[in-house]
Amino acid sequence: MQDFLTDRLLFSATHEEILRGDTSDFYFPRTMKVLEQVGKDNTLVIAEIFPCKDGVLCGVEEVLKLLSGRSLEIWGLKEGELFYKKEVVMRISGQYSAFGVYETAILGILASSSGWATAARESVLAAGGSPVVSFGARHVHPAVAPVLDRSAVLGGASGGSCVLGARIMGMEPRGTMPHAYILIMGDTLFAAQKYHEILPENAPRIVLVDTFKDEAEESLRVADALGTALLGVRLDTPGERGRVTPELVKEVRSRLDQAGHNHVKIFASGGLTPERISLLKEAGADSFGVGGYISGASPIDMTMDLKVVDGKPIAKRGRIPGITDNPRLIKLS
Amino acid sequence: MQDFLTDRLLFSATHEEILRGDTSDFYFPRTMKVLEQVGKDNTLVIAEIFPCKDGVLCGVEEVLKLLSGRSLEIWGLKEGELFYKKEVVMRISGQYSAFGVYETAILGILASSSGWATAARESVLAAGGSPVVSFGARHVHPAVAPVLDRSAVLGGASGGSCVLGARIMGMEPRGTMPHAYILIMGDTLFAAQKYHEILPENAPRIVLVDTFKDEAEESLRVADALGTALLGVRLDTPGERGRVTPELVKEVRSRLDQAGHNHVKIFASGGLTPERISLLKEAGADSFGVGGYISGASPIDMTMDLKVVDGKPIAKRGRIPGITDNPRLIKLS
Amino acid sequence: MQDFLTDRLLFSATHEEILRGDTSDFYFPRTMKVLEQVGKDNTLVIAEIFPCKDGVLCGVEEVLKLLSGRSLEIWGLKEGELFYKKEVVMRISGQYSAFGVYETAILGILASSSGWATAARESVLAAGGSPVVSFGARHVHPAVAPVLDRSAVLGGASGGSCVLGARIMGMEPRGTMPHAYILIMGDTLFAAQKYHEILPENAPRIVLVDTFKDEAEESLRVADALGTALLGVRLDTPGERGRVTPELVKEVRSRLDQAGHNHVKIFASGGLTPERISLLKEAGADSFGVGGYISGASPIDMTMDLKVVDGKPIAKRGRIPGITDNPRLIKLS
Amino acid sequence: MQDFLTDRLLFSATHEEILRGDTSDFYFPRTMKVLEQVGKDNTLVIAEIFPCKDGVLCGVEEVLKLLSGRSLEIWGLKEGELFYKKEVVMRISGQYSAFGVYETAILGILASSSGWATAARESVLAAGGSPVVSFGARHVHPAVAPVLDRSAVLGGASGGSCVLGARIMGMEPRGTMPHAYILIMGDTLFAAQKYHEILPENAPRIVLVDTFKDEAEESLRVADALGTALLGVRLDTPGERGRVTPELVKEVRSRLDQAGHNHVKIFASGGLTPERISLLKEAGADSFGVGGYISGASPIDMTMDLKVVDGKPIAKRGRIPGITDNPRLIKLS
Amino acid sequence: MQDFLTDRLLFSATHEEILRGDTSDFYFPRTMKVLEQVGKDNTLVIAEIFPCKDGVLCGVEEVLKLLSGRSLEIWGLKEGELFYKKEVVMRISGQYSAFGVYETAILGILASSSGWATAARESVLAAGGSPVVSFGARHVHPAVAPVLDRSAVLGGASGGSCVLGARIMGMEPRGTMPHAYILIMGDTLFAAQKYHEILPENAPRIVLVDTFKDEAEESLRVADALGTALLGVRLDTPGERGRVTPELVKEVRSRLDQAGHNHVKIFASGGLTPERISLLKEAGADSFGVGGYISGASPIDMTMDLKVVDGKPIAKRGRIPGITDNPRLIKLS
Amino acid sequence: MQDFLTDRLLFSATHEEILRGDTSDFYFPRTMKVLEQVGKDNTLVIAEIFPCKDGVLCGVEEVLKLLSGRSLEIWGLKEGELFYKKEVVMRISGQYSAFGVYETAILGILASSSGWATAARESVLAAGGSPVVSFGARHVHPAVAPVLDRSAVLGGASGGSCVLGARIMGMEPRGTMPHAYILIMGDTLFAAQKYHEILPENAPRIVLVDTFKDEAEESLRVADALGTALLGVRLDTPGERGRVTPELVKEVRSRLDQAGHNHVKIFASGGLTPERISLLKEAGADSFGVGGYISGASPIDMTMDLKVVDGKPIAKRGRIPGITDNPRLIKLS
Repeated sequence: MQDFLTDRLLFSATHEEILRGDTSDFYFPRTMKVLEQVGKDNTLVIAEIFPCKDGVLCGVEEVLKLLSGRSLEIWGLKEGELFYKKEVVMRISGQYSAFGVYETAILGILASSSGWATAARESVLAAGGSPVVSFGARHVHPAVAPVLDRSAVLGGASGGSCVLGARIMGMEPRGTMPHAYILIMGDTLFAAQKYHEILPENAPRIVLVDTFKDEAEESLRVADALGTALLGVRLDTPGERGRVTPELVKEVRSRLDQAGHNHVKIFASGGLTPERISLLKEAGADSFGVGGYISGASPIDMTMDLKVVDGKPIAKRGRIPGITDNPRLIKLS
Repeated sequence: MQDFLTDRLLFSATHEEILRGDTSDFYFPRTMKVLEQVGKDNTLVIAEIFPCKDGVLCGVEEVLKLLSGRSLEIWGLKEGELFYKKEVVMRISGQYSAFGVYETAILGILASSSGWATAARESVLAAGGSPVVSFGARHVHPAVAPVLDRSAVLGGASGGSCVLGARIMGMEPRGTMPHAYILIMGDTLFAAQKYHEILPENAPRIVLVDTFKDEAEESLRVADALGTALLGVRLDTPGERGRVTPELVKEVRSRLDQAGHNHVKIFASGGLTPERISLLKEAGADSFGVGGYISGASPIDMTMDLKVVDGKPIAKRGRIPGITDNPRLIKLS
Repeated sequence: MQDFLTDRLLFSATHEEILRGDTSDFYFPRTMKVLEQVGKDNTLVIAEIFPCKDGVLCGVEEVLKLLSGRSLEIWGLKEGELFYKKEVVMRISGQYSAFGVYETAILGILASSSGWATAARESVLAAGGSPVVSFGARHVHPAVAPVLDRSAVLGGASGGSCVLGARIMGMEPRGTMPHAYILIMGDTLFAAQKYHEILPENAPRIVLVDTFKDEAEESLRVADALGTALLGVRLDTPGERGRVTPELVKEVRSRLDQAGHNHVKIFASGGLTPERISLLKEAGADSFGVGGYISGASPIDMTMDLKVVDGKPIAKRGRIPGITDNPRLIKLS
Repeated sequence: MQDFLTDRLLFSATHEEILRGDTSDFYFPRTMKVLEQVGKDNTLVIAEIFPCKDGVLCGVEEVLKLLSGRSLEIWGLKEGELFYKKEVVMRISGQYSAFGVYETAILGILASSSGWATAARESVLAAGGSPVVSFGARHVHPAVAPVLDRSAVLGGASGGSCVLGARIMGMEPRGTMPHAYILIMGDTLFAAQKYHEILPENAPRIVLVDTFKDEAEESLRVADALGTALLGVRLDTPGERGRVTPELVKEVRSRLDQAGHNHVKIFASGGLTPERISLLKEAGADSFGVGGYISGASPIDMTMDLKVVDGKPIAKRGRIPGITDNPRLIKLS
Repeated sequence: MQDFLTDRLLFSATHEEILRGDTSDFYFPRTMKVLEQVGKDNTLVIAEIFPCKDGVLCGVEEVLKLLSGRSLEIWGLKEGELFYKKEVVMRISGQYSAFGVYETAILGILASSSGWATAARESVLAAGGSPVVSFGARHVHPAVAPVLDRSAVLGGASGGSCVLGARIMGMEPRGTMPHAYILIMGDTLFAAQKYHEILPENAPRIVLVDTFKDEAEESLRVADALGTALLGVRLDTPGERGRVTPELVKEVRSRLDQAGHNHVKIFASGGLTPERISLLKEAGADSFGVGGYISGASPIDMTMDLKVVDGKPIAKRGRIPGITDNPRLIKLS
Repeated sequence: MQDFLTDRLLFSATHEEILRGDTSDFYFPRTMKVLEQVGKDNTLVIAEIFPCKDGVLCGVEEVLKLLSGRSLEIWGLKEGELFYKKEVVMRISGQYSAFGVYETAILGILASSSGWATAARESVLAAGGSPVVSFGARHVHPAVAPVLDRSAVLGGASGGSCVLGARIMGMEPRGTMPHAYILIMGDTLFAAQKYHEILPENAPRIVLVDTFKDEAEESLRVADALGTALLGVRLDTPGERGRVTPELVKEVRSRLDQAGHNHVKIFASGGLTPERISLLKEAGADSFGVGGYISGASPIDMTMDLKVVDGKPIAKRGRIPGITDNPRLIKLS
């Protein structure tokens, strides 16, 4: 055991471990053995999964990958569809032994992915058509950072900051520059100029303007220096300076316009919530980086119930036996 | 790209991808290139990490694994220590190129692990000495299920249900039996008897008693049948039947005692929060399975600030330049 | 006095005592004597009665019985009509000596009866057409239990549980069976079978199903045994088991239907309020037994004011002298 | 049936009807017949009664009258004792046939009497030693007006206004004069003078002073005229004039004192609640007439459970089988 | 200095002191000297004034008087116009030396006058067409009492009680009689009769009726005595007697009408707020005296910003450089 | 009338107008004439003044000036003393004609001055020993600006910004520099340097640092340039930039200290309330400029009641006749 831990790179599960069922709740492998002994492990069952509240379904494809190659019939909503509280979102038919041990993993994938997608959707609706980028990677374990960004995109985000997340979606990752870069360079203007000189031509020039000086002052310095090459300024004002407010966005917009920099976009980030996004959008912000609101969304609790066993409707107390009619389900595999 | 996706087992990041920096925010690799071009990538810096609220620090060991083999001096609090809002919990000194690209991963590990550990601690405090088991694996992506259980244990939980989580901690996993098992067996008493017959002698017999019949009735049936072999009954009453209430615990306790089954423990689960744990504990419950309260805890937002660059105190607006004195930090590597 | 108390059967007032004026406030008989001495006891007056809030008028017939045979002209709203806050609901003209001593009794009858009728009406409105039965007799003194049930029926209830209440209304009393019956019989199914065997053919078979076993399980046992003879099951789940919830009603409905017992009605009771009635109705409950919400309704405070004395408008401070116009009043006697 | 109703004096139950069991819930007589048929009507049982919240127990003596002459052993708290939520307040042992049909009446007597007594106690505590008189008769049906006043006295009130209530307690009834008296007399001073002339010497002179003029002005007129014969003035200011306020009490007290009438007491009434009683007491009021707060108190719901049948502990779901230990109970019959 | 204070009549500023700039914030005269030394005192600037919330603009004419004779171009909204939060209400162009020292006085006049006018407007809207009279003079320093009444009239009031306030507006002052007058006369009726005898014929007879007796009683005494000469009664019931309530207004109206005094108006005062005005109006009150609600209104904070200096747009951080377009402004001087 | 208005410099009352009684409520001069006609104008009376809530008494000296030379005996609390709700704060004895017409002015002086003094005291208590300066002149009419600052000083403020206010108190006025000064100079550093060069040596150098650049950056620029000559920096951050926050104060303090400018004080202003003052004080602010909280305080309503007329106790309804004992009063004239 000691060696297992010493040699282990990280504590997150590898793909192989997940597929082996190592991340399941302990009682599944154990009771599976009992079922085998009594000859019931291959009992034909139908299981249904339903959520505890409304949301955006996410994780379906990963569940299908997990169960691929097994003799199961799976019906469900499609990746990215809206679901309602207590609506059946997936139905799995087959031998219990073919998927029972994955109950924990299936529910975990759907619950966490749907939680993130749903929060992203709220942000996107608040932005009313303006782009929202997922900046949540820094709040979750790196093992799931790409899952988070993928979920956000399914919820409507334009992209995410995680390099691997973008790769699995076949998209370009999004991002500007960290405060660390400017602090090392020692001056925002110098940092912006070098960034502009060195970056490939097609990379968007969006400069972070709240590091050393007042945002309005710094925006003008950078815009004057880079001219039309500057795509936008990023306002990420810290809480200690009152965060990005609608008034700040309005003023930076006005001062940029008065100096002839109408083409420069304003990209806002820092503790954004749907409510704040709406206000900043109305004040003139052009796009938004949303981190904690998406990554801090609680998983949407998913429940898997056996509803048919050996062809007979059944259910535990509190649930209604037999399959629940849902015409929105399609055959997934 | 298409092949990359088709062949990929799952969307979560592998250990190798994480160590390669693939889960970082996109701007880190990009600005690293700019810094190289201007010859500043190896600038000596000191970075500090602080949380946005009080909690239990978790993830330190994984961060050390991530940064092992790099020429860095790292000071910090120890795994599992309490921290205060805005207290510096980790300080990293060295060349920026040696860790800059891991900012996203470091913060993500600490934020999510500490969030889970802190919620577990609240549950454990509410249980006032009785065991609390993490049942949260089913709400998170399987890639991080072992990380979740490990964090819960660092927050004070007695164990967790995830098989792999237990393995990385060198503990036995915890769990009883799923509703699915009883539904397939068709009767709780029959299920309990087979479970008892087949399980190894040292495995604890805790039987789920809310599937088919009223909990009090079923508890007596099972206790009468298994006698002193029965360690406990698990109450997991669904919301549709009012969840586990203090009155239910009291009644089951009384009825078991009246029938001479004073040795049978009561294990409660299902939507538990610290407040409900306290009430159930007072009513006589002996141990608790906590899922959503731990897994649904938002990450505790962590911020990394450069505070010294090339030996000189520096900071972005809103932060105080130079290192922040914290005598609680010890040298970690 | 001692003999009076020793021999007295109960503390409630007999009909004769009420008609003799023995239940009046003490100051009425006393001041009547003073008025006699000054020759003003037969002064012609007009008195008006008004309520402190909106409601259903009840008690009018009993007031008319109380005042029958006296030379008075009485105008009022009819039994069961809605009234508005501060609307005059009754006007009495005649010699003060003919009714003064009954002020306490008149107001008491109207206030308490109208309070109960109004609460019943709220329950009936919440039930939206489904029958509501008054189960309040057990919360009030038996002397007024029939008055309570009569008031509830005037407020819209379909009937009441009190035997005498039903008799004074010329209706059949309503009720199923007490928990005591099932506890003595020792098993719900056995109790139901005997009940079915012994009861006259036309008596409705409604069986209480929450005594020993889970309601869903017991409902099926009873329905399977009695078949089409079973009119309904009564859910009266105690607070310790979460009371009757919409989910419970839905599940029992579904399980009965799946077993082919679509004809079995669901009768809900136990701490019902208008809000809960609405929810249970929507979930499929067919009728309702309402106790504490009706019996616990506070009396609707009624005030009697002299408005004309010897033909001249008069009033105490705060009231407007003279009769108050109300075209809704009709001549009652 | 029509004749029964036509001849009936009132709708309240007579003592004989109550003793015959006519006010019971319909299901008791009906299921008693079934029990007889199966030979279980004389089953030996133990029943326990418990309340839904804390209060003052009232109605015990009336219950004992109801059950007198039956072969039952009854234990309970004494009339007027405080009880706690869910505490057993009465335990009845014997053949079920000997008391089953009275369950409705027993619970109704205890619930309504205890509700009134408890509200009276709250008023008395608020008055901190000053007398409180029950004025609630006018809000309840006259059949229970004496029961109300008796309950109030058991809760600590000094007396009540109902003539019959006082008689059953062997006390003098309390009261001053109605507004009607003064309105008929046409002037408060004239009314007070005649009242003083005509009343027996030992009757207390308390004059109502808010009918025609400002209370302070009228108090002085009356006090000047009656001198030391005046025991007190009663302030019953209507809601339209702001009710009796602490400032009014203070001013009337001061103006009476300045005119040398220090001996005149102030008796306050009109919509009093414990909170208002405390404020008026502090402002100088000497005694209080409380109506709606006592009469409008909801009954304290009482539950009767069979806990032993044929010598064996039993209970319905949600309750604990067997008798509940309560050392405070004494043998009542 | 001592002499200056000893001889000084009062502490309020005289008109000459205000015009000399003596009431300005100290830093204006001081920095003006610095600007002179660096030759910038005559810099051409444009200043804009905006309010912190919506309201009625008041004080414009006094500002124009203050700045008259100076070479400035002033644009603004007109006296009495509604303005919106952050709308520019005045724009001043010219040499800074010509108005800089008056910034304090200009803002103070506009802020306090607009605060009062806005509160008056709310009262007037609540009165829905009935006259509202400003009674606020007694809550503010006498130096500004006329300014208060003038502001109230600009906000919609029909007049004010301050003699000087009326004179500066060319109106008749409003008022009835003080409680002191009636207390000295010893009786309201006697006071009313003498008032009627002695007052010039055209002065309105409105008599205060709450001093000694109940308002309804006193209203009838006065109306009976003065007959058609009586214009109205004033209800100013003190807080200790519950203030003027809708019920009191209704009753006085009814009693006056029943006695044939339909022509007598009801004038209400005493702690009136817009909410209470609406209720009293609906109950029949004909006009209102409003004091504390108007005089206690906080000033509406006004900010003056330099937006152009030497022809170039400029602004401090948080404001947008250059003049703010507002087509509602007109040239005032 | 037209001429009177045209020639009038401002609308505020002059000292002479106030002393002539022109600012009184109209009914005082009018009823004085009636009293003269009936020969009661010289009636000897005692009047008492009491406030509607707790506070700091202010305005006494101005009232004494107003009544000086009249034959009156005046008792009262001293200028600046604390008073309690409904406590008598002043008692005036003499002929009614000698002061009746000043009731409006006396109450207005006391009410508004005490309102301001009380709000200042709350600010001073929140500052816990650090200086508070009144900056409220810009929110009130210039006629009362000196009265405001004098009241603030009586409430505990260290001084005020109004030039005339300081003069009447024999103090130096307080203030730094306006934003307009810096905007005209075009750069904060240049403005600070000229200010330093030109100002007399004993004038304190406090520089406003939020006009053009971030406060922390500007503070360092100014402190580096002026060195030990700089007494302090003033933070007056506008609402659009989040106002002055505790974090900003801490950071500016730290950055100044790190640069060796420990001697530079921090003076905070802008929308300060007692709550914010406490937080900023704790964060390191050294002194505070408070405007709107003091100037926006509502007057503390004062009531004057006649309590004795011609030697006899009297009072209107709601008040207690005769003088109210208050041993705290001293003879003032």
